[in-house]
Amino acid sequence: MEQTYIRDIANHVGEVVTIKGWLYNIRSSGKLAFPQIRDGSGIIQGVVFKPGVDEKLWNDVNTLTQESSLIVKGEVREHPKQPGVFELDVKELEIVHLAEAYPITPKEHGVEFLMDNRHLWLRSQKQHAILSIRAEIIRAVRDFFDSNGFLLMDTPIFTPAACEGTTNLFEVNYFDDTSAYLTQSGQLYNEATAAAFGKVYCFGPTFRAEKSKTRRHLTEFWMVEPEVAYADLDDVMSLAENFITFIVHRVLENRRKELAELERDVTKLELIETPFPRLQYDDAVKMLQEGFAKGEVENNFVWGGDFGAPDETYLSNKFERPVMVHRYPAAVKAFYMKPDPERPDLAMCVDVLAPEGYGEVIGGGQRAEDLQYLLKQIHEHGLPEEAFDWYLDLRKYGTFPHGGFGMGIERCTAWLCGIEHIRETIPFPRMLYRLKP
Amino acid sequence: MEQTYIRDIANHVGEVVTIKGWLYNIRSSGKLAFPQIRDGSGIIQGVVFKPGVDEKLWNDVNTLTQESSLIVKGEVREHPKQPGVFELDVKELEIVHLAEAYPITPKEHGVEFLMDNRHLWLRSQKQHAILSIRAEIIRAVRDFFDSNGFLLMDTPIFTPAACEGTTNLFEVNYFDDTSAYLTQSGQLYNEATAAAFGKVYCFGPTFRAEKSKTRRHLTEFWMVEPEVAYADLDDVMSLAENFITFIVHRVLENRRKELAELERDVTKLELIETPFPRLQYDDAVKMLQEGFAKGEVENNFVWGGDFGAPDETYLSNKFERPVMVHRYPAAVKAFYMKPDPERPDLAMCVDVLAPEGYGEVIGGGQRAEDLQYLLKQIHEHGLPEEAFDWYLDLRKYGTFPHGGFGMGIERCTAWLCGIEHIRETIPFPRMLYRLKP
Repeated sequence: MEQTYIRDIANHVGEVVTIKGWLYNIRSSGKLAFPQIRDGSGIIQGVVFKPGVDEKLWNDVNTLTQESSLIVKGEVREHPKQPGVFELDVKELEIVHLAEAYPITPKEHGVEFLMDNRHLWLRSQKQHAILSIRAEIIRAVRDFFDSNGFLLMDTPIFTPAACEGTTNLFEVNYFDDTSAYLTQSGQLYNEATAAAFGKVYCFGPTFRAEKSKTRRHLTEFWMVEPEVAYADLDDVMSLAENFITFIVHRVLENRRKELAELERDVTKLELIETPFPRLQYDDAVKMLQEGFAKGEVENNFVWGGDFGAPDETYLSNKFERPVMVHRYPAAVKAFYMKPDPERPDLAMCVDVLAPEGYGEVIGGGQRAEDLQYLLKQIHEHGLPEEAFDWYLDLRKYGTFPHGGFGMGIERCTAWLCGIEHIRETIPFPRMLYRLKP
Repeated sequence: MEQTYIRDIANHVGEVVTIKGWLYNIRSSGKLAFPQIRDGSGIIQGVVFKPGVDEKLWNDVNTLTQESSLIVKGEVREHPKQPGVFELDVKELEIVHLAEAYPITPKEHGVEFLMDNRHLWLRSQKQHAILSIRAEIIRAVRDFFDSNGFLLMDTPIFTPAACEGTTNLFEVNYFDDTSAYLTQSGQLYNEATAAAFGKVYCFGPTFRAEKSKTRRHLTEFWMVEPEVAYADLDDVMSLAENFITFIVHRVLENRRKELAELERDVTKLELIETPFPRLQYDDAVKMLQEGFAKGEVENNFVWGGDFGAPDETYLSNKFERPVMVHRYPAAVKAFYMKPDPERPDLAMCVDVLAPEGYGEVIGGGQRAEDLQYLLKQIHEHGLPEEAFDWYLDLRKYGTFPHGGFGMGIERCTAWLCGIEHIRETIPFPRMLYRLKP
């Protein structure tokens, strides 16, 4: 028996089709029943008129419980008063399974309850919209890089040494009492693949064992990281703004319905165009200090530190487009950042802060290419040199200017969806106290 | 300074372009030097004629060591005798970095040495070809599912309980002395997302703590797993054959050059068309037993077991296309397989065996949808019921027929590349004794 998906229903007006799915909801009044059927691709309202069907069908439709699985055959009609809305004049109904009392009801449930029932909560329209937008973003990410000469390089999840200290790393029992650590970033590996392939990206799960319980943290999240041979900081910033704009356009193009379902204010997203404002860290600090003087910021930010969430929110609210803050103090950034030739106390790095208070979505920059400088940095950071022998090789055998960035998919998804907490942006979120289901 | 990529060089004949890359090799004879330059997108031969350049350029080109990084400016010319081959008449040369003596030389190196230097080995033409084909396969996988109504659902890497015993699972120290286990498959989660989205796939790294040292095993590998609501075993087999054929066609279409570089016999790949032969396990056993009688198989296979690598090789060599072996004894398959209604001792499963001895590339089937049957299976397999509470929920709230499969990217890549060992099909392989670089 052929199956028609609800997303394609507009192509079947006047035809009798078979839909296989679940009962989303049902209204009944006198001689009319309106079962709403979902099949994962959409929702359609069925119409059952008692005098027009046999008794069994009428009885069956009235025994249906929420989330019962069913197969219906019916004629597709355009709604008489709402063009573009379709109904199914139900002719046959097969109950595949009569669901037990479904735990998620239209009443309000607490987040912990919904998270405990994540495997069922995914069936709701809001979750459907968020995860469809997530999939669209991921598709856009890959299309962007694949069509711009980047080659996908899956970097390893198991890494041997705890390169940057073990504090935020998950340790795995590998074989014979050796330990491996779960990757926090594929960047160092991508520097090797960029030397081999020029323009590369990795895109996979990354892990942070941070004991953070904020709305921006997951212990397991997906990150995409491009790396470009012979790119400098300006190239990295251009790439970042083109990349983000491409993603936003794609989501606006293909996911209007889902954005509407989430009641997202799309006018904010429609403002996202290149170029993005570029703001040197020094100037960002001045903005924060002026904000403090005007009573708009709580703390008086002191030059030299990294921004906290309230600082990022304040800065990003000054702009309608994502703002690219560059040249942070080298002291607060990773050891591999290239120092600014004109001011070596600054790193050639950039953070892209999303508007509307969503904070950092991209972090990146140009990498140090000088062997001696990197050795000095490794020693000053107290890192074990032998763990970096292969990485240092890249500076011995044809070192080259290069740079790139990383973007977390869940933060990007939360921003584009306009939702507060990133826990809903991945099918099964993993957090400090959440490993199940 | 603009950069032209070597892959686009045919569009720039007669123009002066800038190439940024590395010295791959150099030949010199008298007044002529032929530096081969690679930039990750391709290799081009430069031509330097001593009387035509200044002394510094001539001296510089002759000091270049293998893998030195450099920027050259020159005019693109079509090779006088080889149409389609291009050369660069070098006008300017900037040495970015003079490489130290490069450890990988044209002489033969042992595999362990090359693996220790994997970060450099990636620069070789063979590795370039393999990993380009890998990226093409991954792109094809995503295009196939994205354009056929499937929604990407990233399933979790951290899983809470050791569902199928801890033998082959990697254990992670999560927070506060709890343990998590690294995923072996996203299938169980995809059964939940299929109920929400109809047609879904997950695609990410998976982990097996097997102490295997075969050419077909990695501890960390990438697997794609589609799952389809309301699909039966026949649907799963149709999906699998369409999927594999799509991938093979795509690779033949876009990666001829790389296949040639690997000296792959593409005539074997050109035979891959739908439909694939479908062979019931019972008949496969007969073939093996007949093979034994003829002296073509070493062991006399006994009905009831799973096939070993030599059995798979023998069977797959009987066919030019991948063969789909279905309905194995339920006893050798996972607890969640649907039993054959006509012969409950058989599972409604399928393994797809690639030709040329590459063995299983796909395993899948239809899932048991009956709650009571699954409970019985869980008990008989000695599994902890509480670990499956959420999974069993899927059978309480609108259970539905469904199925899917998993395909390992590295095995597929090894097959299409025609290489023996899967360790070269991923940038940084992880094996029993290999965690570095």
